[in-house]
Amino acid sequence: MNTFGRNFIVSLFGESHGEAIGVVLDGVPAGIPLTVEDFVSDIRRRKSGGKGTTPRIEADEPVILSGVYEDHTTGAPLAILFKNTNTHSSDYDILQQVPRPGHADFVADVKFDSFNDPRGGGHFSGRLTLPIVAAGVVAKKAIASVLEGEEEEPARGKGSASGKGSEPTPCDIKAKIVEPGGIRRSNNSEKKWREALDAATAEGDSLGAVVECVIREVPVGLGEPFFNSLESCISHAIFSIPGVRGIEFGDGFKAAAMKGSEHNDPFGPDGHPVKNGAGGINGGISNGEDIVFRVAFKPTSSIAKEQQTLNFVTDKMTALSVPGRHDVCFALRTPVIVEAMAALVLADQLV
Amino acid sequence: MNTFGRNFIVSLFGESHGEAIGVVLDGVPAGIPLTVEDFVSDIRRRKSGGKGTTPRIEADEPVILSGVYEDHTTGAPLAILFKNTNTHSSDYDILQQVPRPGHADFVADVKFDSFNDPRGGGHFSGRLTLPIVAAGVVAKKAIASVLEGEEEEPARGKGSASGKGSEPTPCDIKAKIVEPGGIRRSNNSEKKWREALDAATAEGDSLGAVVECVIREVPVGLGEPFFNSLESCISHAIFSIPGVRGIEFGDGFKAAAMKGSEHNDPFGPDGHPVKNGAGGINGGISNGEDIVFRVAFKPTSSIAKEQQTLNFVTDKMTALSVPGRHDVCFALRTPVIVEAMAALVLADQLV
Amino acid sequence: MNTFGRNFIVSLFGESHGEAIGVVLDGVPAGIPLTVEDFVSDIRRRKSGGKGTTPRIEADEPVILSGVYEDHTTGAPLAILFKNTNTHSSDYDILQQVPRPGHADFVADVKFDSFNDPRGGGHFSGRLTLPIVAAGVVAKKAIASVLEGEEEEPARGKGSASGKGSEPTPCDIKAKIVEPGGIRRSNNSEKKWREALDAATAEGDSLGAVVECVIREVPVGLGEPFFNSLESCISHAIFSIPGVRGIEFGDGFKAAAMKGSEHNDPFGPDGHPVKNGAGGINGGISNGEDIVFRVAFKPTSSIAKEQQTLNFVTDKMTALSVPGRHDVCFALRTPVIVEAMAALVLADQLV
Amino acid sequence: MNTFGRNFIVSLFGESHGEAIGVVLDGVPAGIPLTVEDFVSDIRRRKSGGKGTTPRIEADEPVILSGVYEDHTTGAPLAILFKNTNTHSSDYDILQQVPRPGHADFVADVKFDSFNDPRGGGHFSGRLTLPIVAAGVVAKKAIASVLEGEEEEPARGKGSASGKGSEPTPCDIKAKIVEPGGIRRSNNSEKKWREALDAATAEGDSLGAVVECVIREVPVGLGEPFFNSLESCISHAIFSIPGVRGIEFGDGFKAAAMKGSEHNDPFGPDGHPVKNGAGGINGGISNGEDIVFRVAFKPTSSIAKEQQTLNFVTDKMTALSVPGRHDVCFALRTPVIVEAMAALVLADQLV
Repeated sequence: MNTFGRNFIVSLFGESHGEAIGVVLDGVPAGIPLTVEDFVSDIRRRKSGGKGTTPRIEADEPVILSGVYEDHTTGAPLAILFKNTNTHSSDYDILQQVPRPGHADFVADVKFDSFNDPRGGGHFSGRLTLPIVAAGVVAKKAIASVLEGEEEEPARGKGSASGKGSEPTPCDIKAKIVEPGGIRRSNNSEKKWREALDAATAEGDSLGAVVECVIREVPVGLGEPFFNSLESCISHAIFSIPGVRGIEFGDGFKAAAMKGSEHNDPFGPDGHPVKNGAGGINGGISNGEDIVFRVAFKPTSSIAKEQQTLNFVTDKMTALSVPGRHDVCFALRTPVIVEAMAALVLADQLV
Repeated sequence: MNTFGRNFIVSLFGESHGEAIGVVLDGVPAGIPLTVEDFVSDIRRRKSGGKGTTPRIEADEPVILSGVYEDHTTGAPLAILFKNTNTHSSDYDILQQVPRPGHADFVADVKFDSFNDPRGGGHFSGRLTLPIVAAGVVAKKAIASVLEGEEEEPARGKGSASGKGSEPTPCDIKAKIVEPGGIRRSNNSEKKWREALDAATAEGDSLGAVVECVIREVPVGLGEPFFNSLESCISHAIFSIPGVRGIEFGDGFKAAAMKGSEHNDPFGPDGHPVKNGAGGINGGISNGEDIVFRVAFKPTSSIAKEQQTLNFVTDKMTALSVPGRHDVCFALRTPVIVEAMAALVLADQLV
Repeated sequence: MNTFGRNFIVSLFGESHGEAIGVVLDGVPAGIPLTVEDFVSDIRRRKSGGKGTTPRIEADEPVILSGVYEDHTTGAPLAILFKNTNTHSSDYDILQQVPRPGHADFVADVKFDSFNDPRGGGHFSGRLTLPIVAAGVVAKKAIASVLEGEEEEPARGKGSASGKGSEPTPCDIKAKIVEPGGIRRSNNSEKKWREALDAATAEGDSLGAVVECVIREVPVGLGEPFFNSLESCISHAIFSIPGVRGIEFGDGFKAAAMKGSEHNDPFGPDGHPVKNGAGGINGGISNGEDIVFRVAFKPTSSIAKEQQTLNFVTDKMTALSVPGRHDVCFALRTPVIVEAMAALVLADQLV
Repeated sequence: MNTFGRNFIVSLFGESHGEAIGVVLDGVPAGIPLTVEDFVSDIRRRKSGGKGTTPRIEADEPVILSGVYEDHTTGAPLAILFKNTNTHSSDYDILQQVPRPGHADFVADVKFDSFNDPRGGGHFSGRLTLPIVAAGVVAKKAIASVLEGEEEEPARGKGSASGKGSEPTPCDIKAKIVEPGGIRRSNNSEKKWREALDAATAEGDSLGAVVECVIREVPVGLGEPFFNSLESCISHAIFSIPGVRGIEFGDGFKAAAMKGSEHNDPFGPDGHPVKNGAGGINGGISNGEDIVFRVAFKPTSSIAKEQQTLNFVTDKMTALSVPGRHDVCFALRTPVIVEAMAALVLADQLV
């Protein structure tokens, strides 16, 4: 189902080349200040146009259909709509018989009995992460509202709840690329990365990346011992982002090669764990330390470089160069999506 | 909440040193042959007693309280109980003021306002994975029942649905340790691993491991495009197992360092992807290939080796050597738990 | 929460005088033929304009934003939008300090901390039943699709699935007014009812009604023994319609005054119960007979007739004559809403 | 599904003649004082043995398996078990081919493909209302705990939270029979009722009743505008009790015959509605007045009096006199069950 959450419920809809995409949020507390300007910053972070991203540029202007009155949330469901305008559907006609490798074309065709909308991936499109980012903006504000008990407009000049200067807000969520194309961040890695990006672009190929997300100032006690451990809920949301191949918390996969005396986290004199190898979660429950997790994104599946693959109609192998406009490294646009998903999880626990 | 599933619903209860632990399964199809003997094999795989596991040995005999009549499921909720017998509660008295590093003692105390049962970790205990394994047995049989359409007893000598000789059953789920203590499987790694285990035992320390799970013969179409992608549902269940630090599907974290032309999976002449780098899932939906995922387990948190940690009552650092009987590498007992969790997810999709 | 269903999930949004109202349906099977024309008949039945209904007339034209491609459902979420056009918000300004008797003004103000949209009742407005009727249209088609296994267009001239001449379709749902204004249907009651309506209109007063719904050709086995008995699910949906005061199945409240030998329903020679006093449901589960239930609707709360009520700002009693355009008997417009809710329940059980 | 609630989750299991019946409660707040003594009073109210009830008497002693430590709830799932002891299974053997009129025998057989446990109605038995009453006891205490903020033992001599002398506790829930066997309560109706009961007993027949439930001291704001209106949630729970035929709130079915000026509830000088014809709920949301609803229970289906019904094996009509020990009027035992269901709903909203 395309619905997430138990208390802060997100319902996603839309197709890449349909009339509009959007999201309905149910369970948003009343009284949170909200206008379309609040969405600008996060939506811009997801936008294409930079090096390594697609030249398909959409206006991406949110329309708030309901749930807001006089610039505050009303407590009723909040519906946000984005029109689709810049669509080139003819690009996709040929692909109906040649499912694109790495894409959902094949499974969608089987699951939905060929009734799925094939244009631009239809409902499977990465474009659907736009309303998710919008939902994340509301979730971040809901979290701040619940934890700060502040329901008034912040003082002018201080900016929105999610970007208040250096002092961390409650559940401050920040994600960034830490390993673009397999290159670890270091003094001179920025140059290597640009070169790798240029090379991939030239070859019609693509790159992946690892994104790290850190959530600061988390209250102790979020999550449950078993089936709704905080890692369960976060990973559930993160694997809803197209192209994720793995997730790890704290020491992650390295923990499997450590000894207990190395990985364990004794409490220091200040009552805090010394190392945070658990990534802020023990027994499924937040322990008050920074929640730290890393997400592996695959390289973009749509590549111009020729791939030999099957034509399911002719039953013959064929050379495919995926047409259309695509990101060389879509992962560059994902940190704000990772943040949005984390925010949806925390809002669901907190409201 | 300690409840999982939408159609095949699991409710877990119990504490390590309470009277009994158990599970209620709601949504089990009627007519599946089921007796206590069906649980023997999987429960034995989880059992302690082997090298690197705790000497606390429980009878672990399931009592079926409801939902079975004349050795077949009735369609009514199935309740399974395990008595706790071999409990040494006095071991834990001293730990209430010194939360054990890596354990849930601290968060449980905060979340439940000190009302949690502290004996043996209470509800947070790994012992709760026993009813999960039992639930997994029922889930495996439910999956087979739905996919095979077979509701009669299998012919004698063929064994249970989950272990029918060499021919894979539908959704055949198999998990095993692939990297014990950071040592990759190879010709001579078995010896290295036993040495590492002996060394850790001698030092009072502990080890972790990576478990790989492969699910064969999966129907195409399980999962949803966004919030209930198959990876979302599987990771949700897997992170409910105590001690998991990461999960990856197919090429996993390596995918983030690959090029699109390397990671992508063109369809071969037989209509199957050539490499299965996606781990059997595209766009959140099973594509019919083997589902492959790896799970990182941390080293056992309870170690005899001294750790310097805080006494929250005296507010002074103290040397802690965790008493009680513990696994040196609890991950050795987890493959069957990983299988059970995977089975719960698939059963929930299929029933 | 404004979300209903487990498999066929409905998310409702919008306010009476906001930009638009609508609904998102998740879990709609792929391949059901669907165009905006399919909504015309049911939407017209809900429309105002007849005797005893409000002169506020809206275009009520559905816009399908997603989930339909080439006139068939795609299996992705289906979003349907209705613009609000004919709004007179100034009518409601004075009512913010004098909560209208029988309305949600008071509770909305408390629950949402005065942030609710007060115009026309905001999200509480009966106007929200319009997208519910639209959802019901899709639900009825989904039910027919599942039960008939027919996913093609019906032959021309046969009409839509919900109105196929005299032969009942599977789960054929029909609701009608059986007791308008407390007047039982009989030979000459139609005249009495028109007189009562005229009198109420003249007095600025309002009337209620009892609606009866009959569902024919129901498969045996829908519902669950306890918490999701079919009556539980139907009543849950029905009490979501504004203004419902009661519901009864089969013999209903009369059953409480009957003897077992009168109310019991022995099976006749044809294997069917003789009387259907149970209203088609035994033990929470459909028994294959007609499901029959009756719903009591209160009289319209908005009346022009003066009511003495409290002004919560001045703390003084005041005479209130509710302005605006209202139904004298809104229940006249509800049979199609009752059908829609019943359809949502059955679709949720069947898809 | 046999699971109820979103925050305070109830999972019911067991069969009438199985080993045990019980319930798992997930979401119980930590720190509520709870011992087996707390269940005595409500369980006794449900017990048989009085005039018009069955002579089958069970010990009905709850065993708390988990979730309680040192006489307080721990926050972990609470499992409560009742052993079945006094079972006469041979009574039911003959009924497998002659489904009892008014019972679930027929639908259970179809829905569960003849795998259901037929003994004593199996999972459909009214005996399952025993763990529901136990769940209600915990729910009542959870409500009091949340609303009073009191988590300590009440002072000795004051009794349990649900029966504190004359001063109403928050959400004080009280149900009673108001119309036994169709006889309205009045000065001399008690005698009439006893005569009706004696007559029914003598004839081997049975009687029904109407139960009224009043909930006092309800906070304003419980419930939601549409799909989870408070009436929706209460009716959902109430129709989970076997034998319910109808429910109405406030003026109920009478409201359908009233004028708006009669049914409407203006606010008086004290800020309270004058009449409470809405039964404490407006727009789906509690308005702070007493919640008042009435429930129609059918007469007991099991009667000794002969009924002509079909033998589904011989395909011939046969005279059936239902053997076994049954209530002449099982509704006499239901007020405490109605209270329990109401408490489950309120606890789910409040915890």
